[in-house]
Amino acid sequence: MCRWLAYNGSRVRLSDVLYTPVNSLIDQSLHSKYGAETTNGDGFGVGWYGTAPTPGVFRSVEPAWNDQNLRELCHHVSSPLFIAHVRAAIGSSVQQTNCHPFRHGDWLWAHNGFIDEFASIKRDLVLAVDESLFPEIKGQTDTEVLFYLALTFGLEHDPVDAVASAIGFVEACGRRRGIKYPFQGTIATSDGENLWAFRYSSEGKSRSLFFTRDVARLREQYPEREILHQVSDDTRLVVSEPIGDLPGAWYEMPESSCGVVARGNDELMPFAPKPPQQLT
Amino acid sequence: MCRWLAYNGSRVRLSDVLYTPVNSLIDQSLHSKYGAETTNGDGFGVGWYGTAPTPGVFRSVEPAWNDQNLRELCHHVSSPLFIAHVRAAIGSSVQQTNCHPFRHGDWLWAHNGFIDEFASIKRDLVLAVDESLFPEIKGQTDTEVLFYLALTFGLEHDPVDAVASAIGFVEACGRRRGIKYPFQGTIATSDGENLWAFRYSSEGKSRSLFFTRDVARLREQYPEREILHQVSDDTRLVVSEPIGDLPGAWYEMPESSCGVVARGNDELMPFAPKPPQQLT
Amino acid sequence: MCRWLAYNGSRVRLSDVLYTPVNSLIDQSLHSKYGAETTNGDGFGVGWYGTAPTPGVFRSVEPAWNDQNLRELCHHVSSPLFIAHVRAAIGSSVQQTNCHPFRHGDWLWAHNGFIDEFASIKRDLVLAVDESLFPEIKGQTDTEVLFYLALTFGLEHDPVDAVASAIGFVEACGRRRGIKYPFQGTIATSDGENLWAFRYSSEGKSRSLFFTRDVARLREQYPEREILHQVSDDTRLVVSEPIGDLPGAWYEMPESSCGVVARGNDELMPFAPKPPQQLT
Amino acid sequence: MCRWLAYNGSRVRLSDVLYTPVNSLIDQSLHSKYGAETTNGDGFGVGWYGTAPTPGVFRSVEPAWNDQNLRELCHHVSSPLFIAHVRAAIGSSVQQTNCHPFRHGDWLWAHNGFIDEFASIKRDLVLAVDESLFPEIKGQTDTEVLFYLALTFGLEHDPVDAVASAIGFVEACGRRRGIKYPFQGTIATSDGENLWAFRYSSEGKSRSLFFTRDVARLREQYPEREILHQVSDDTRLVVSEPIGDLPGAWYEMPESSCGVVARGNDELMPFAPKPPQQLT
Repeated sequence: MCRWLAYNGSRVRLSDVLYTPVNSLIDQSLHSKYGAETTNGDGFGVGWYGTAPTPGVFRSVEPAWNDQNLRELCHHVSSPLFIAHVRAAIGSSVQQTNCHPFRHGDWLWAHNGFIDEFASIKRDLVLAVDESLFPEIKGQTDTEVLFYLALTFGLEHDPVDAVASAIGFVEACGRRRGIKYPFQGTIATSDGENLWAFRYSSEGKSRSLFFTRDVARLREQYPEREILHQVSDDTRLVVSEPIGDLPGAWYEMPESSCGVVARGNDELMPFAPKPPQQLT
Repeated sequence: MCRWLAYNGSRVRLSDVLYTPVNSLIDQSLHSKYGAETTNGDGFGVGWYGTAPTPGVFRSVEPAWNDQNLRELCHHVSSPLFIAHVRAAIGSSVQQTNCHPFRHGDWLWAHNGFIDEFASIKRDLVLAVDESLFPEIKGQTDTEVLFYLALTFGLEHDPVDAVASAIGFVEACGRRRGIKYPFQGTIATSDGENLWAFRYSSEGKSRSLFFTRDVARLREQYPEREILHQVSDDTRLVVSEPIGDLPGAWYEMPESSCGVVARGNDELMPFAPKPPQQLT
Repeated sequence: MCRWLAYNGSRVRLSDVLYTPVNSLIDQSLHSKYGAETTNGDGFGVGWYGTAPTPGVFRSVEPAWNDQNLRELCHHVSSPLFIAHVRAAIGSSVQQTNCHPFRHGDWLWAHNGFIDEFASIKRDLVLAVDESLFPEIKGQTDTEVLFYLALTFGLEHDPVDAVASAIGFVEACGRRRGIKYPFQGTIATSDGENLWAFRYSSEGKSRSLFFTRDVARLREQYPEREILHQVSDDTRLVVSEPIGDLPGAWYEMPESSCGVVARGNDELMPFAPKPPQQLT
Repeated sequence: MCRWLAYNGSRVRLSDVLYTPVNSLIDQSLHSKYGAETTNGDGFGVGWYGTAPTPGVFRSVEPAWNDQNLRELCHHVSSPLFIAHVRAAIGSSVQQTNCHPFRHGDWLWAHNGFIDEFASIKRDLVLAVDESLFPEIKGQTDTEVLFYLALTFGLEHDPVDAVASAIGFVEACGRRRGIKYPFQGTIATSDGENLWAFRYSSEGKSRSLFFTRDVARLREQYPEREILHQVSDDTRLVVSEPIGDLPGAWYEMPESSCGVVARGNDELMPFAPKPPQQLT
């Protein structure tokens, strides 16, 4: 049910992260090991912060494993901060406007999971999106609606609070319609400076999420790995499923938690949705 | 700004109507003569009534002129009633879910034109769609929203009244937001028995629309044309722009009119939008 | 490494064979059980004999499991004889001209397998294709070149002999270049009347191939299955991998064999390549 | 019949050249003024020299005017040397492997025009391609075969001589088959340092080709144009059809000529095909 990867650290060529490692995200598009679905062939996307004022986004409906243009782009673009996503569609069409990451101004947003029985509460959710943001919704997915809800609830000012409010609102709407576990998933979002990662599900059995331990320690453990000498100490990867072949390189993010990757000021904290006052 | 063609009459191979004639709809996808845009290369679609319980719909984002699968399909499928459409996108993405014709149950729907400043009133329009129909909206276009408004207003029971109510509602919403001429366009819709065609614009300068004169008279005028001997007397074509090379074969549909092609009971009547009571 | 299905018998809707059964070919595009690759998401195709003079062919580069147009087509087209194929690309591009089945006049051709080290002997093979056929080669695949070799060696007159000569030629060219096992695979081909299926590999470990036992016996065994009462006694399916849920319905085709499905005159015989005289 | 643009000079964002100017190449994809066809909607490509060892190539079968990924790429990639192409297919399929520019090692190659009756001489031409290069031919186009012929005749060592030999060979093969005017077109090719442009046709009525006069003079004439102050004196554009709105900015390249854009050592010289010795 989708896999994503988020990187924040030293500037690298995208291909060094997305193609080179063992069990890379591109490999996972064809054969994921941990995913609810093993094939993520219903499109992909990568959003990166580069030299232009707003982040670039490249999305396609083709399976990532065979997309020649993605390969070319990743070999020619380097970035200090990017989010990539491979998709297994559930319910919505395979079209570019349904591919992650989504973008609004400086912000990128990707998600692995779902809003349960989305069709039955989509109207309620869409109505809560700020009127000025409404026309920007271009696709059909639960993820994009969640993004615009988070923006409505203040993502650009207080990301953690906004995501908590958005998921809280989804849960309230869902439960009002008798849905037991309205939300499931992991989220990556960024403003080009920091990277936020969330792991939460109403059921308490969330999709997997991992992040790298600090590079200095990894460098001690694997002194022969050149890539570890190239990247800065504060470089960090967050992924749905580990990539590469370095045992001990990954921590699993706990249930109901949220992490901020902030170039030296990383933080991991508990996360809980914030129920809307008027609906509870 | 799109071209469409609707056929009701004797069963024919789709290719005999869509490919064979001079200035066919497929030719118009590349070089339209009358259209606001001369190239309609942003996707196409054809919906046909065949042997299955519901109409078939084939839609693609490729330019119609070069689509090999469309060519194959049209050579192998025959139908007594079908609607085809070539698209010039204005504002919305080139994706399959934005291609006409749209389908709901037995109904097909295609449109050439636009709702002016759609982004600014889309929310108002979408909110008026019946809650049970809301989850079926899959794309971004004004045309699809208009279709679901017409369904909300009773398309399946009284098509002319429902389209009048839908356009009336669009005009009321638009004018409330200061839009001078909210609606422009021609519409084709069918339930598999009859075919309805509408020509109307708030400005009174509507997109062109033509229909064929009766086949018996054409046969007298062009006795050497074999195709005219193959089709029944009550066969009729309605098109955005004339196809073929038979002078005298086409009538222009008047401004603000509506036609029903009903296999022998054809009717042409004036058309006016029906303003909503609560909004006027 | 691709999966294919060939049907010859009573006229049926394509969807009844391609979508309805358990573990259908469309399911196998996402999760094949027996294939060398488990995902066949690099395009698909279906060729069918219908009412038009030549067979129809619908091919697409999208994964079959999510292709809405394929679904529509299969629900609206019925045929007594068709070949469908889902593809896992190995080495060649994901493009429509590389999708099976290939067509020449009345003939269709699909293949599961490969010519080993094709790049190194492609030139030799292409040079042996009849000059009049050469311009028809449109894609990059080994399968298409093998088809044109078989046509060059007389496919239209003596299919079994022509396929034996084509594979024999491939083996001779390959071995001259030091390739140990030049050919691997199963082939389906038809002229619209009969259906030929081949299972052969230079190594003697061929891709799997199965065919249905006679319908009369199946009907006795599964009297409650309605589909078995609908199809004629001489209906037969040949598949890379069994579909449906009827134990005892399938025979495995032996190594190095060839079958003709000829509506009542079915035949299974040994198959061996025919080495070219000038090259041995 | 295609339009191309080649740029050599100061490093610029691709979008500043491909999107910003009036009548830009992307505009020409929808409405070309000079072309034999007015719509170039059958795919596009851009090849650029950047920071990676080999040039990047991004090619797509969608019309360029609506391709969101091309837009993103061009806003985020800058380059001192690039070739872009929009395509109107004649005879060959709309597929990525038929899109220009073609790439071999450091070399890029694009073409506007055609080899007349290509199908009838394709085999002769393909046979003349060096055996080691043969497996690299991936598409169906005359342009790609011409590129591999030029490589066979020494493009990497003496580009002007190699192109003269390749076109000479095409003319000899064509005339042997009774083709009056075997070659038509303009060609752009580069090794990442220099840019070569050719204008030639067997008939002496070649497709149009233009290049910019020197920047210093343009700066005097249009002192208020900021872009002219940003680019270096030795920057030059070569285009099928002028872009922008600066009268006096363009020279038409003469019939049967060849130009080298070499960052300060530009040269314009007569061009004539070189007939093969063995065929004349």
